[in-house]
Amino acid sequence: MTILDWLDHVGVAVFAATGALAASRKQLDLIGFLFLACLTGIGGGTLRDLILGLTPVFWVREHVYILICSSVAVIIFFTAHRLESRYRLLLWLDAAGLAGFCVMGAATGLTATGSAVIAIVTGILTSTFGGILRDMLSSEPSVLMRREIYVTAALLGSSAYVLAMRLGLDANVASGIAFAVAFVTRGGALRYGWTMPSYKSAPGRPPEDVM
Amino acid sequence: MTILDWLDHVGVAVFAATGALAASRKQLDLIGFLFLACLTGIGGGTLRDLILGLTPVFWVREHVYILICSSVAVIIFFTAHRLESRYRLLLWLDAAGLAGFCVMGAATGLTATGSAVIAIVTGILTSTFGGILRDMLSSEPSVLMRREIYVTAALLGSSAYVLAMRLGLDANVASGIAFAVAFVTRGGALRYGWTMPSYKSAPGRPPEDVM
Amino acid sequence: MTILDWLDHVGVAVFAATGALAASRKQLDLIGFLFLACLTGIGGGTLRDLILGLTPVFWVREHVYILICSSVAVIIFFTAHRLESRYRLLLWLDAAGLAGFCVMGAATGLTATGSAVIAIVTGILTSTFGGILRDMLSSEPSVLMRREIYVTAALLGSSAYVLAMRLGLDANVASGIAFAVAFVTRGGALRYGWTMPSYKSAPGRPPEDVM
Repeated sequence: MTILDWLDHVGVAVFAATGALAASRKQLDLIGFLFLACLTGIGGGTLRDLILGLTPVFWVREHVYILICSSVAVIIFFTAHRLESRYRLLLWLDAAGLAGFCVMGAATGLTATGSAVIAIVTGILTSTFGGILRDMLSSEPSVLMRREIYVTAALLGSSAYVLAMRLGLDANVASGIAFAVAFVTRGGALRYGWTMPSYKSAPGRPPEDVM
Repeated sequence: MTILDWLDHVGVAVFAATGALAASRKQLDLIGFLFLACLTGIGGGTLRDLILGLTPVFWVREHVYILICSSVAVIIFFTAHRLESRYRLLLWLDAAGLAGFCVMGAATGLTATGSAVIAIVTGILTSTFGGILRDMLSSEPSVLMRREIYVTAALLGSSAYVLAMRLGLDANVASGIAFAVAFVTRGGALRYGWTMPSYKSAPGRPPEDVM
Repeated sequence: MTILDWLDHVGVAVFAATGALAASRKQLDLIGFLFLACLTGIGGGTLRDLILGLTPVFWVREHVYILICSSVAVIIFFTAHRLESRYRLLLWLDAAGLAGFCVMGAATGLTATGSAVIAIVTGILTSTFGGILRDMLSSEPSVLMRREIYVTAALLGSSAYVLAMRLGLDANVASGIAFAVAFVTRGGALRYGWTMPSYKSAPGRPPEDVM
């Protein structure tokens, strides 16, 4: 099993865990946990495979992904009440999933198209779409709209992978470096509140005022 | 015409009706009715076909589906004001659509992949995605996040279909049984407020408190 | 370069601009601008290609689309504070994108399937989906749910294209006419508040009241 395979499985598991934690915050039943865990765990990779034309998508080809998500959902259902801060854990697991998936997404995009630009875009899409689905369905404010660095971490991780591969590094080494780049960036944002310089003007007025 | 074909067309029609009823609750124009009816009626099956790689998707191959959705939208546009409780009707039609689509989704998934796990997952996705789109676009609280059993009904219906087929039953009989299982489960939830044991802990605190 | 190609590139650019303007209203960072600009610019065409089975999707086949969206995002990031009414500009650019994309979507659908019904549907989906994604992610009220004509403009533009092609007109002429039909319709709605006769009954009661 390569580091890439390992990142892929771990990425699915930790994103599934964030989906299950979101379900616990909404006090859903077990099936709600399973549903949100699966959607979050496999959502990003599903979009990646659809866009690249790799159908049937990965979890239809290999059942293990659904089993991973379901197992994680069941475990969280019976243990989440013991956690002190579920949202904090959700954010850190989400950071690990983000790092794993941006590498996987970039690797799949690079293999399928040979293009650095597309690899970076599929890296970003793969690592963000599951969380978008999770936040939308559980009516949480989207992690993407928070001030701290998020999409930037996926961009840096994907770019690091592509660059390392172009420099001729071994795929395992490239994966490890890229994962570290993305995780440290997002982790720093969570721990120290790192932000990018944001747009400076006054916030937009609500739509009704201006028409 | 097999029971499966019949369930498919009826499922599209009743989901389209729920989309049109959502449009009536938002007081949209006729085109808004057509748009929401089509999205809700064909959304679940579209996702199913994309995931399984069955493209172009079903309603591109057979025009009748768009015509069914459009006709239903026009009928509801001119009759919805006579209904006493449009939301109650929406929920019951949604239950019928859920039951029809979980069978269709499971059947398509089973035929395409031969896998019980995948068939159950495609059954659930097919029967829930149209409603997710509808609720999202019309800014209603999602039916999936309600306390009463919902996804569970799709899970039981899909599982019943797969089990019946594995036991060697005729596809028409299997479809009928599975439809009944899903509809009775969801109907009981609507009528008697059936719920699954839900996660017991305190609800999550809002995100801002914990970071 | 045909008028169709031109409409396609301009459509991507103006939709990307609306995404970047939405990002400026939310005061996101540069990467947030890039992310929303790309999603809005390529979202509609991505759904169109997926549904028709034209994978890998258009922006994976030709990199220029990602570069267009990214350039637009950077330009808007550094200039948006000079604009007096960003939401008004967003709506007018959205109207231009709507008109360009309903023609492109109808043309792609007609070429791929030969069906007028499917061409009109893909025209509507292509021209509305990017905006739906943008509004959803930036938590703005969806342009589709506004009273003024919106989807209707896409319907008329797509229909005009199909009709003109069926009458044997040159593809460039058909594209020009169809663009004008859609843009004038949506522009009139923005300028003069044109609406379709809407459903007349009392608005729906909130869900909790009726169950």
